[in-house]
Amino acid sequence: MFKIEIVPRYQETDQMGVIHHSVYPVYYEQARVAFCDEIGLPFHEIEAKGLRQAMLEMTVKFHQPARFGSKYSLYLTVSKAGKVKLVFHYALKDAEDNLVNSGETLLVWLDENLAPINLAKKHPEVYQLLKSYEQSK
Amino acid sequence: MFKIEIVPRYQETDQMGVIHHSVYPVYYEQARVAFCDEIGLPFHEIEAKGLRQAMLEMTVKFHQPARFGSKYSLYLTVSKAGKVKLVFHYALKDAEDNLVNSGETLLVWLDENLAPINLAKKHPEVYQLLKSYEQSK
Amino acid sequence: MFKIEIVPRYQETDQMGVIHHSVYPVYYEQARVAFCDEIGLPFHEIEAKGLRQAMLEMTVKFHQPARFGSKYSLYLTVSKAGKVKLVFHYALKDAEDNLVNSGETLLVWLDENLAPINLAKKHPEVYQLLKSYEQSK
Amino acid sequence: MFKIEIVPRYQETDQMGVIHHSVYPVYYEQARVAFCDEIGLPFHEIEAKGLRQAMLEMTVKFHQPARFGSKYSLYLTVSKAGKVKLVFHYALKDAEDNLVNSGETLLVWLDENLAPINLAKKHPEVYQLLKSYEQSK
Repeated sequence: MFKIEIVPRYQETDQMGVIHHSVYPVYYEQARVAFCDEIGLPFHEIEAKGLRQAMLEMTVKFHQPARFGSKYSLYLTVSKAGKVKLVFHYALKDAEDNLVNSGETLLVWLDENLAPINLAKKHPEVYQLLKSYEQSK
Repeated sequence: MFKIEIVPRYQETDQMGVIHHSVYPVYYEQARVAFCDEIGLPFHEIEAKGLRQAMLEMTVKFHQPARFGSKYSLYLTVSKAGKVKLVFHYALKDAEDNLVNSGETLLVWLDENLAPINLAKKHPEVYQLLKSYEQSK
Repeated sequence: MFKIEIVPRYQETDQMGVIHHSVYPVYYEQARVAFCDEIGLPFHEIEAKGLRQAMLEMTVKFHQPARFGSKYSLYLTVSKAGKVKLVFHYALKDAEDNLVNSGETLLVWLDENLAPINLAKKHPEVYQLLKSYEQSK
Repeated sequence: MFKIEIVPRYQETDQMGVIHHSVYPVYYEQARVAFCDEIGLPFHEIEAKGLRQAMLEMTVKFHQPARFGSKYSLYLTVSKAGKVKLVFHYALKDAEDNLVNSGETLLVWLDENLAPINLAKKHPEVYQLLKSYEQSK
């Protein structure tokens, strides 16, 4: 399973003393970027191929508050690498391996004109690469 | 239905030229704050009563990109005002009344020690007030 | 003097219970955008003319903390509308007219290729318009 | 000189395709936090001592745009570790060692009631520690 380390920033806290709930989608994106780098498909290469992604839906579940001063691991799983849709699942865990936050994002593939495409037809090499990482969460 | 105006900030755009997906939960929160003000239950009064809220789950659906330079209306509905849970539904529409973004947040009521409470028992006046705004989305 | 209302967002607070210091530049930008709208020179028109702006320097002074739940007025002054440089000055005041925050931004004019230009030569109408608002802070 | 690595987040870009100018103060804060950790004075220990910091002034200079997809080094220098004031200087450099951004922040020491204090008197060990890192930028 792919993993990045998350060190919350002071700026990400709110006056309840916890990481604000709007920050987790930013952590998720950071994990997607790092994952794409890791598998040899960095964002600038995706863009250079004329490929775009649009987020269709995002779900975030808050199990425990995350705090400044603690360190976390964010696990990313490719739960569906389809011809049209790409689903990632995320799990944020603290140092004791407690689940702090989990979520899912649904992306669709677009061309440069932001029209939906069939990735398997247009960029089979990208489709196959992502498919090889697909797994149940 | 309760409504606020949203004028996207330049800082909220990303290099795709659209409002970044992590910003919508901030708009939602802005709507909750304005709604609570409107019904005579401002956040500082909620806090003064020793009440806290924790977000348990959030779902965001992206129908169309929102852009800097346009103006939007964000509609908020109380879809469930329960003894333990509070569910809001959000719909962001553009000037032509097209649905741009929609979402839902699930909050639970806590006391000052962040332990879950039964709002109907502890603060029946708050419970009744919110209940009176409950409606199907 | 040009003025906008600032209602701090909950998300902008930090765990010290105040508005985080990185938020004020975002308020400043909001004031610049509103000012340009007001004088009939909206950002999209500036961009449509092939004009770009780059920030060269920004100074922010913190006199008192701003807080969620309070309302503020942000005053903007064009302190220099030059051929190359554009300087804005900002003053954030609370409801009792106390100075909470003040700052300055220095922008330079660029063309579409992000090369510096002489605004008075390339777009005299924009230069004259801004010049007419120049005043000492 | 103390240094951290900065990997810009996609969310930090704006529609000009560069890192938004309001993000640099967040990078600076990240450097301060990492520096304090490094010298054995983590933020939670500072807070546990009843010490608070307030930012009085911040200056940010933009030499070149920073971009998503590139990596940067952020250098932090303690330019003044006084009894009342603490000044940090920052320099962000790209992989070719070009200066991209530089800045300065002025903090003052407060007690738990947010009243200014003389650090050398109240917490000489903290004062001495920081003093030992003071250097010209």
